[in-house]
Amino acid sequence: MKIVALAGGVGGARLAHGFSKILIPNEFTVIVNTGDDFSHFGLYISPDIDTVCYMLADISNSQTGWGRKNESFSVFETLKEFDAPDWFLLGDKDLALHLERTRLLEKGYSITQITDKIRRFLGIKNHILPMSDDEIRTIVNTVEFGEISFQEYFVKYKFQPKTIGFRFNGIEKARPTQAVIESLEKADLVVICPSNPFVSINPILSLPKIRAILKNKFVIGVSPIIGGKAVKGPLALMLENDGLPVNPFSVKNMYEDFLNIFIIDKSDGPIVKDYIQPSSIIISTTEILIKNLNAQIQLANKIIDLYEKYK
Amino acid sequence: MKIVALAGGVGGARLAHGFSKILIPNEFTVIVNTGDDFSHFGLYISPDIDTVCYMLADISNSQTGWGRKNESFSVFETLKEFDAPDWFLLGDKDLALHLERTRLLEKGYSITQITDKIRRFLGIKNHILPMSDDEIRTIVNTVEFGEISFQEYFVKYKFQPKTIGFRFNGIEKARPTQAVIESLEKADLVVICPSNPFVSINPILSLPKIRAILKNKFVIGVSPIIGGKAVKGPLALMLENDGLPVNPFSVKNMYEDFLNIFIIDKSDGPIVKDYIQPSSIIISTTEILIKNLNAQIQLANKIIDLYEKYK
Repeated sequence: MKIVALAGGVGGARLAHGFSKILIPNEFTVIVNTGDDFSHFGLYISPDIDTVCYMLADISNSQTGWGRKNESFSVFETLKEFDAPDWFLLGDKDLALHLERTRLLEKGYSITQITDKIRRFLGIKNHILPMSDDEIRTIVNTVEFGEISFQEYFVKYKFQPKTIGFRFNGIEKARPTQAVIESLEKADLVVICPSNPFVSINPILSLPKIRAILKNKFVIGVSPIIGGKAVKGPLALMLENDGLPVNPFSVKNMYEDFLNIFIIDKSDGPIVKDYIQPSSIIISTTEILIKNLNAQIQLANKIIDLYEKYK
Repeated sequence: MKIVALAGGVGGARLAHGFSKILIPNEFTVIVNTGDDFSHFGLYISPDIDTVCYMLADISNSQTGWGRKNESFSVFETLKEFDAPDWFLLGDKDLALHLERTRLLEKGYSITQITDKIRRFLGIKNHILPMSDDEIRTIVNTVEFGEISFQEYFVKYKFQPKTIGFRFNGIEKARPTQAVIESLEKADLVVICPSNPFVSINPILSLPKIRAILKNKFVIGVSPIIGGKAVKGPLALMLENDGLPVNPFSVKNMYEDFLNIFIIDKSDGPIVKDYIQPSSIIISTTEILIKNLNAQIQLANKIIDLYEKYK
């Protein structure tokens, strides 16, 4: 069985972590958002890819979900001596990855090739596929600052600006990589991770061919909203700004055209009857808060069971 | 009195250090070679400027002469995990400077402006002037590898390749900065530091106007050769490859057109009679090994005394 997951940062990395522990490596592939990528201090940084890599390599910081464990901050502390921008935390070990990625990019390697090299050196056996080798940049339109880059919105301004909309700069000319297309075409099951639909999953879905392939696949999505709150990040605020209720069904509606099963948290079970429209999408309730490895593995197994039952 | 020193890396930084301790800040300025600058892991690195800055800020590593003291290597060690190139040592604190310089360059600041910001944040009160804001790259022509960059020759191959010649890529179009020209024009005394004449001082001298200005100035040079050996680095090998004797006078001859006084080590005093040609250049012998601050201050004072005596 081939499972392919679409993932953004922490939530996606957590579920991918669960799958990576229970499947034979070539059975599981992750396609990762690169709309968050940005250049900082001359370095090319891929926050979502880094988070997935660190998580799958079992070297992530379990407190934050991103960054490396046993990290030091010698460079970052010295940067402060120069009054340099300190809004994006740069750990020493994390910096090594940014440096090596930047070096390889300058040598002409693609983000796909570089990510594959990095995952090998980190001892990860699953393929981690950047959604595209083309430059796509998520731009957040805000009331306070107008259009700003995703990292400014997310990290610098701690997602407090009121969002009006999102734009994926470069998406018109961008293509998914051949590896992404092939992995999806060969997939028996596609999993939409509990990532932010606006800024983690939608960049992937906005690439040519992706939605069309998903419509012909068995697709299971997991809600990033639990009990009226986003597990992490700005999703609840984004839904509110769009005038949408902060519940799993606002997310489900964004995947309506290709979803077979949508998994919500058991705590949201009671509201199913209030929101569910006549639809062929199966709603499944289970424990979807997956902060530790056990919960990650349980959810991954649950998804496989659902696929086996309903495929 | 205004003193301006032309400097490369460690030797130049050491003598500049001495001057910085005994002169009022606006009396002393250093003009630094940028031919060694290079890009590594996407970062812009200025080895000679960094060495001068760290030395004048009293944060240099006194063992090596370059790099920072109390340095850590967390990033560098992690880079090894990725099998990244490890021939150029990158300390954590040192990296912070490279990152900030690269960030400011991308924002459009010139190397002169950036160096001035860095020296201020490091608490240095003397002006440190890059020789040019234009890109000049020292290329070393070698028997073994043909033309290679200076850092490859110097650091990667530990100056073992046999040198045929040197070329300063970009020098034809490069200009010294206005600050460099003005500081030299206002100088009462110009000091040629005990730096490598081929690859530290000659790039500065090769810029338009510099030699012409020096011919009208009182110029004191200090030998980088002591007792038939280079204090540091590849100078002895370079002289041999050029068929020149490894002694102070081979260096003096390279500055013949503008030098007033040349200072050699007292250990080289006995050979003066063998090498000195009829010349108006005064040869002065003293202790010129300046590995510690006391010796650096003594030599700086000696140079001022010589100027006062012979000006």
